Amino acid sequence: MVVDKIKDIREIIKSQKSQNKKIGLVPTMGYLHEGHLSLIKKAKENSDFVCASIFVNPIQFGPNEDYDKYPRDIERDLKLLEENGCDLVFTPSVEEMYPNERLTTITVRKITDKLCGAYRPGHFDGVCTVVAKLFNIFTPDIAVFGQKDAQQVAVIKKMVEDLNIPVEIIASPIVRDKDGLALSSRNTYLTHDERRAALILNKSLKEAEKLLAAGERSAEKILDAVRKTLENEPQCKVQYVSCVHPDTLDDLNTIGDKALIAIACYIGNTRLIDNLLWSVDK
Amino acid sequence: MVVDKIKDIREIIKSQKSQNKKIGLVPTMGYLHEGHLSLIKKAKENSDFVCASIFVNPIQFGPNEDYDKYPRDIERDLKLLEENGCDLVFTPSVEEMYPNERLTTITVRKITDKLCGAYRPGHFDGVCTVVAKLFNIFTPDIAVFGQKDAQQVAVIKKMVEDLNIPVEIIASPIVRDKDGLALSSRNTYLTHDERRAALILNKSLKEAEKLLAAGERSAEKILDAVRKTLENEPQCKVQYVSCVHPDTLDDLNTIGDKALIAIACYIGNTRLIDNLLWSVDK
Repeated sequence: MVVDKIKDIREIIKSQKSQNKKIGLVPTMGYLHEGHLSLIKKAKENSDFVCASIFVNPIQFGPNEDYDKYPRDIERDLKLLEENGCDLVFTPSVEEMYPNERLTTITVRKITDKLCGAYRPGHFDGVCTVVAKLFNIFTPDIAVFGQKDAQQVAVIKKMVEDLNIPVEIIASPIVRDKDGLALSSRNTYLTHDERRAALILNKSLKEAEKLLAAGERSAEKILDAVRKTLENEPQCKVQYVSCVHPDTLDDLNTIGDKALIAIACYIGNTRLIDNLLWSVDK
Repeated sequence: MVVDKIKDIREIIKSQKSQNKKIGLVPTMGYLHEGHLSLIKKAKENSDFVCASIFVNPIQFGPNEDYDKYPRDIERDLKLLEENGCDLVFTPSVEEMYPNERLTTITVRKITDKLCGAYRPGHFDGVCTVVAKLFNIFTPDIAVFGQKDAQQVAVIKKMVEDLNIPVEIIASPIVRDKDGLALSSRNTYLTHDERRAALILNKSLKEAEKLLAAGERSAEKILDAVRKTLENEPQCKVQYVSCVHPDTLDDLNTIGDKALIAIACYIGNTRLIDNLLWSVDK
């Protein structure tokens, strides 16, 4: 079922809840790939009625970012969602989501000042605000987000905690192409040659993983190795390479039981992110 | 029933909702008076299970405001709520509401820059954030607020609209003492003589009402009359006198079908607010 009006979503959800169905939500910006479909699968494992939203949210893009050219293919998306057993798809217009002058913003401080947040001012305000709206529209029991946007997961979890939003946030692991490139709708921007060069991101994280497996616990040494690997690829311009706690996003000096190694690089004009979520029991 | 834990509220509400009970919420800071009790009454008229919260919310007080000395009398409050048929009272500690470092804030721009907001920076961020938390804890169908805090009503309505919060906001008229003073927990700060002086607030609004009834539609003329009346009372120091649209809080020059005449004054050290909500069909 595909609907584009909030009031229709509310009616459908109300009817499902009256049948005691557990509601799962997967918010997306469309142009779906296997990564998104793994979120749908995860939602199906954890709820009875799986909903997805497809909305390229203008307020999370900066003025010089790619809102206009962000890839869209709604027909293909709807086909994929149906094939993968998604029960309800919400495809609102910008006017449906922001009908009047919007005056309200949700801000999460501090953990949004680093990593991607440091380079994308206002981005997480836009993410939090639209995600809170979607939570209020769907009132889901669970919502699934991709671990590839590790900071987004941490920020949304913190918002949910701070505002007592009654939803369980589930993070789903990164899905990679056979050659190791983390799936992203933005991979479509890459030329053939850039796509090859982009493999360096995953390769550098593999270096980190190897060091961690060998017992290295100095964040500096691991980050040096990651940076050195990335610099081997002339087409890669590093934006940041960080080693932080996955929940608080506090910088780590010595790695304890958990760490997130997160990187952002430009390959040509395309900004790509990737990360390694590491824990001792892994 | 009185509970102080969020998880207990969630359980009770879940059980009430499973019986198809419509949930009503009256958020308060306690030290209840007839104004609050009129909100309980209004909630009873509009829902099946009436909840109140008593929480003096630290984050809506400025550093030089009266958080510490804000009046509290929980025993009396609970007795009044029980007598007035309130079904559930939530009396959380500050630690229950803000257990960890809070990083999330909800901000409503523009309409918070004027009236009280201009003199209480951050106040409405604190109000919006705690009210959103209470909405997420109770998931009420309706929530009732006093029209005395007219700007608060406008700000919360805008937040609910912008964030698609599934709750109906009901504003309930100002309740006055026999002599016309708008009821407020802060009236307890007034000395006997200040209390007499404070009557000038309502008196000045009566002037405005008289002019409106006589057909005056110039905001300037009405505001002049209000100001002049207030200045007749030597103990009254005017903070602001405004004539705005009650929803957008835009300043009005010529009064159309609706207007809010809002005033804030100091009587001694006590800041008091009052307002007149006027409409053509009134």
